[in-house]
Amino acid sequence: MAETVFGKILAGTIPCHRVYEDDQVLAFLDVGPLSKGHTLVIPKEPAETLDKLSDDAAAAVGRVLPRIARAVLAATGATSFNVLQNNGAAAHQSVFHVHFHIIPRVDDKGLELEWDTEKLADGEALAAKIRAALS
Amino acid sequence: MAETVFGKILAGTIPCHRVYEDDQVLAFLDVGPLSKGHTLVIPKEPAETLDKLSDDAAAAVGRVLPRIARAVLAATGATSFNVLQNNGAAAHQSVFHVHFHIIPRVDDKGLELEWDTEKLADGEALAAKIRAALS
Repeated sequence: MAETVFGKILAGTIPCHRVYEDDQVLAFLDVGPLSKGHTLVIPKEPAETLDKLSDDAAAAVGRVLPRIARAVLAATGATSFNVLQNNGAAAHQSVFHVHFHIIPRVDDKGLELEWDTEKLADGEALAAKIRAALS
Repeated sequence: MAETVFGKILAGTIPCHRVYEDDQVLAFLDVGPLSKGHTLVIPKEPAETLDKLSDDAAAAVGRVLPRIARAVLAATGATSFNVLQNNGAAAHQSVFHVHFHIIPRVDDKGLELEWDTEKLADGEALAAKIRAALS
């Protein structure tokens, strides 16, 4: 795995505005926020994308998301927020170390989405294919 | 907490295209997908938003995200994907039971984002405020 800016933050060679840290997780402010309080939550385990992260590291990140979210809401006064995690350049990932964005909606700023849905076709066949891949 | 369509799926009164289930988590296909393989991962614990979810339930969801993502990628041939979790109507939440979207990028379909950032101002003061809210 190539060295990333988040790897350097974990190594302490680049500073960050830390908001939370435990044995497996670090959280800090995004320096290019979509809104006030935009926070990044990363596993200390190096993995480029979520599908390559260990179960334990993913559980450790999941466990702290509610409590970090509550603190971000308390500090910003926001009541709505998005959690976003991008994997692959085609899915807007720019730093290749797994990171979860916590993006509060503050003063009409935050994450803007398009939601152009289809109708699910052949759902059970697709679900069976995913179940088979899981087993 | 009001009964939601996901609560009804968990209760078995509405069907779903199930892809994964354990004691704490259910995953099934979104019936209004952004792309082929768009999957929802929900805790069985009822919580409207992630900030209200227990640490254990959040860890259980986090733990299975990598393996469900791998299966969605394997079944669809996608190599990029987004994980998205919305909280509050202002942040595009429509069903008020916590859910994580796994949205593969397939045939140029998937999650479309705008990314209109600012420069972080007074980062250390804000980080201190979030840290104080966490402690």
